[in-house]
Amino acid sequence: MPRASLTPAAIVTAARRVADDEGIAELTLRRVARELGTGPASLYRHIADRQQLLHLLADDLATGYPLTRAGRDPLDRVVRQWHAMHDYLAAHPWGARIIADGQYALPSARPIAEHCVDQLAAAGLDRETAVRAYRALWHLLLGHLLNAHPFGHLHGARGDGTDLDRAVRWLVTGAAAT
Amino acid sequence: MPRASLTPAAIVTAARRVADDEGIAELTLRRVARELGTGPASLYRHIADRQQLLHLLADDLATGYPLTRAGRDPLDRVVRQWHAMHDYLAAHPWGARIIADGQYALPSARPIAEHCVDQLAAAGLDRETAVRAYRALWHLLLGHLLNAHPFGHLHGARGDGTDLDRAVRWLVTGAAAT
Repeated sequence: MPRASLTPAAIVTAARRVADDEGIAELTLRRVARELGTGPASLYRHIADRQQLLHLLADDLATGYPLTRAGRDPLDRVVRQWHAMHDYLAAHPWGARIIADGQYALPSARPIAEHCVDQLAAAGLDRETAVRAYRALWHLLLGHLLNAHPFGHLHGARGDGTDLDRAVRWLVTGAAAT
Repeated sequence: MPRASLTPAAIVTAARRVADDEGIAELTLRRVARELGTGPASLYRHIADRQQLLHLLADDLATGYPLTRAGRDPLDRVVRQWHAMHDYLAAHPWGARIIADGQYALPSARPIAEHCVDQLAAAGLDRETAVRAYRALWHLLLGHLLNAHPFGHLHGARGDGTDLDRAVRWLVTGAAAT
């Protein structure tokens, strides 16, 4: 493959394919170079290290977040938005882990943040509370995605597909009430 | 060290020391055997594999959860309980990861589950809602512990020590209201 194809976009597409197909642990610069039909040395001219590759991948992931406007009322729109984000991230199991491990802000995540905060404000939260609720909902969502432990299933309430929706609704209802 | 000292309690104590001091990645049967002044072969007579070692460690961790009854009202008691659980797990950074990765129920976690569900019921939730809220609060707590990403800090509401308390209060208030 000619060196001209080593654009950031081509590199991140190849990295995403490796992460989706083989898992994040397999994602090395060497493996991505092989995917692109080139050698590690060529790739190192474009990417400093694995950390930068993960950053590019996280930034690319953030460009694809769904921005939904569906729902019968403001609270329902918030619930559907977070449900859609859950499904999007669940389709890329490496996503939640690199978001949680990433201690940097991603420029491409700004539209989703603003969309979500606006939705929370429309549901009755003042601006600062909306931003705090936005952060709390991320903790909740990442907990859902990263946690395999079946809490509470021995106590008569088995987890199901409505768990996250319910918790988002509770959290936002409580934030609007206090 | 004589073989008589290789009780399950001694093994799990040594494993906990290794995990606290060196991190979970360093926790191997070989490393624990060295900590106990014995060889891996001796340890394998008591522990089948690393998975069993992690299970023992998770079970041991669960015996130590704080059960608090402090607080000025039922909701405040719930908030303080989860705050205490956060602090307990934050002191053992490997804890949240092995809980989240563990797809088994731990017998020693039953007291904490019952205590927390009782507290939620006292705060006005019916039994099934209390169990569901218990699971949602675990997702929230694990999200807090596993997530290093500073969501919302660019939007004027920097995270602080009150984030979890606030989110717990919102979630329980909303669960009681719906």
